[in-house]
Amino acid sequence: MSSNGEIEIGDLKIDNEDDVVNPWSVTSASQEGVDYDKLIKRFGSSKIDSELIQRWEKVTGKPVHHLLRRGLFFSHRDVHTILNLVEQGKSFYLYTGRGPSSGSMHIGHLIPFIFTKWIQDIFNVPLVIQMTDDEKFLWKDLTVEETTRLALENAKDIIALGFDVEKTFIFSDYTYMGQNSEFYRNISRIQKCVTFNQVKGIFGFGDSDVIGKIAFPAIQAAPCLSTSFPDIFGTAKVPCLIPCAIDQDPYFRMTRDVAPRLGFSKPALLHSTFIPALQGANTKMSASDTHTAIFLTDTPKQIKNKVNKYAFSGGQASIEEHRKLGGDCKVDTSYQYLRYFLEDDEKLEQIRQDYTSGALLTGELKKILIETLQPIVAAHQERRSKITDDVVKQFMTPRSLNFSK
Amino acid sequence: MSSNGEIEIGDLKIDNEDDVVNPWSVTSASQEGVDYDKLIKRFGSSKIDSELIQRWEKVTGKPVHHLLRRGLFFSHRDVHTILNLVEQGKSFYLYTGRGPSSGSMHIGHLIPFIFTKWIQDIFNVPLVIQMTDDEKFLWKDLTVEETTRLALENAKDIIALGFDVEKTFIFSDYTYMGQNSEFYRNISRIQKCVTFNQVKGIFGFGDSDVIGKIAFPAIQAAPCLSTSFPDIFGTAKVPCLIPCAIDQDPYFRMTRDVAPRLGFSKPALLHSTFIPALQGANTKMSASDTHTAIFLTDTPKQIKNKVNKYAFSGGQASIEEHRKLGGDCKVDTSYQYLRYFLEDDEKLEQIRQDYTSGALLTGELKKILIETLQPIVAAHQERRSKITDDVVKQFMTPRSLNFSK
Repeated sequence: MSSNGEIEIGDLKIDNEDDVVNPWSVTSASQEGVDYDKLIKRFGSSKIDSELIQRWEKVTGKPVHHLLRRGLFFSHRDVHTILNLVEQGKSFYLYTGRGPSSGSMHIGHLIPFIFTKWIQDIFNVPLVIQMTDDEKFLWKDLTVEETTRLALENAKDIIALGFDVEKTFIFSDYTYMGQNSEFYRNISRIQKCVTFNQVKGIFGFGDSDVIGKIAFPAIQAAPCLSTSFPDIFGTAKVPCLIPCAIDQDPYFRMTRDVAPRLGFSKPALLHSTFIPALQGANTKMSASDTHTAIFLTDTPKQIKNKVNKYAFSGGQASIEEHRKLGGDCKVDTSYQYLRYFLEDDEKLEQIRQDYTSGALLTGELKKILIETLQPIVAAHQERRSKITDDVVKQFMTPRSLNFSK
Repeated sequence: MSSNGEIEIGDLKIDNEDDVVNPWSVTSASQEGVDYDKLIKRFGSSKIDSELIQRWEKVTGKPVHHLLRRGLFFSHRDVHTILNLVEQGKSFYLYTGRGPSSGSMHIGHLIPFIFTKWIQDIFNVPLVIQMTDDEKFLWKDLTVEETTRLALENAKDIIALGFDVEKTFIFSDYTYMGQNSEFYRNISRIQKCVTFNQVKGIFGFGDSDVIGKIAFPAIQAAPCLSTSFPDIFGTAKVPCLIPCAIDQDPYFRMTRDVAPRLGFSKPALLHSTFIPALQGANTKMSASDTHTAIFLTDTPKQIKNKVNKYAFSGGQASIEEHRKLGGDCKVDTSYQYLRYFLEDDEKLEQIRQDYTSGALLTGELKKILIETLQPIVAAHQERRSKITDDVVKQFMTPRSLNFSK
């Protein structure tokens, strides 16, 4: 596995036509991006269909989030089981995470957290958020100290989304490992269940990979076992639901194999799509190339310039042609971004129709995106500026959480 | 690597003639046991010669321990460097350990600890003792809870040897991992330096081994980095000396490759031979067959019966023949045990001469061994009975130690 993530081996890469989707690389040759229906087949997960959405709305008595409604969370594993628990009055907990490889996150990084917060608010369940500083140390050219620091920086962005400190525990692997023996005990139990052959098949590891990488999947798996958090769950075996981008699925496919052997239920999953790079779904977002994404630290002016200059357009070459032929929403980055960030369904549908018909020009579409993102990012920055180190410490202190058992 | 340890692969097994010596298996086809001179060549360590012993005595101003004098600690790495430090008035620390796979230890298990205590007393240096409960969980059919419990039981036997709580820290991997983030940080750093290819070569791991085993060597390596113990050393990089049986050398060969890349000096080593099974050096001691060793829980009567019944004799078939031809000390278990446990050099030499000449009969030699071991084991039991759980807790609490810096 090269750290630049370009070359992929193992069972994730079935043939040259396929998109590459794994924890270290997501690439697609298609302008429309990853073929998610194909991915569901390859990964063996289930499509989030209208039946599941209707059942979700029935169980919760509330309309689902636009990310779910619009298929931006598109795939799942065992979510029906979670809804069964809810119907039976039983509890579960949420688990998601972030690999802190750079101090400034882009807006795409927020998607799983925004969605997780929505689920937490609906079901009133505890949430654990893992910052895999150890993973980033192993995979990137960063020191232990740097990834530890980046974990704290990223935690501020996550907390700024409005998580409830009474119900949310954020932890970095390096720090939490030294605060709690049960975490390592569960890692060890998982590491006794998984062979090198298995991680080779699932993650494409090879003989020249370092042993830290080979053993790491158990560290991302362990938070699926509630006993890794004795301060929250004691010794109770509580079912787990994981909202995450689908590139993280290999970790949890492995965990779903191991968990029952350790007496736990398989973690359930909700998989999101990937927000495209500004330059289009067949290019890569890069933290080192700030032009490829809208960062949470961008100014209104930077947002405007980036969208106007770099956002890939599905429009035609001239206004005349555009009016006649219309634009292609499927490949237009601005439209795709609005699917994630514009909550108003009617307005979005109107934009889609107008752009497709040619009534809406690319410049006008970009303006809508700019005016949608600017206040979101500005509000985020405003909230983040108020997150002190003390607040981070509160979230990251092992403690009991307040939730209905 | 089969868990019964019979089949060995990797670079440790050079040809079929060689003895098998690695952390999971020690076997020799020869009645005289492992060929230690050959082992020094294979492992690339240095023989403990009279020059080193003389220098040691000169630096410390005291005669060396009989285990060193008699070549029972026979091999080393960089001990001259440690003596240089002592001459310069600089400090080092001692590190040794135990894999707690059974509650009752045999007398052979005490050897590295007896020797380590002697070094600690001479140099007035801190000592860390690692109980690898995680290793035993991974390699044996034991639960995490059982190996944790065995670690505490074994700690009592170790403490009973008279270690100074002011200078000694005993830790179990499962427990200490949750008490200190720096331990895991160092493990992670080591795991980033070592590839699967390397542990395959050093330990003979294969593709069907579990990832816990593959990653484990870093956990035994981490205590060689003084910063794994911030309560003791703060952030100081203190050199480390490891007295251990030579089967543990592969771990530290790996560590000696890694340590300089992390800014630490290579750990120095003192290697011991293996005490033979009662039935002879070409048979295996087994915790599940209590007849193969003298256990620390044996009664005087059990010791007498075991030695009389099972101790392999180097004597002749009849008294007449023995008087005429004499016995063979090299293969006689009783004589070999006396080399470890009878401190009086003159008496040991007299026994050797008399047994070799035939003046001393096998029954008489066994009687000497029985009368040597009985009081040693009884005194151990007496001291161990006074080691309460509170005393164990004191030794196993992370804290600063009292030593000359």
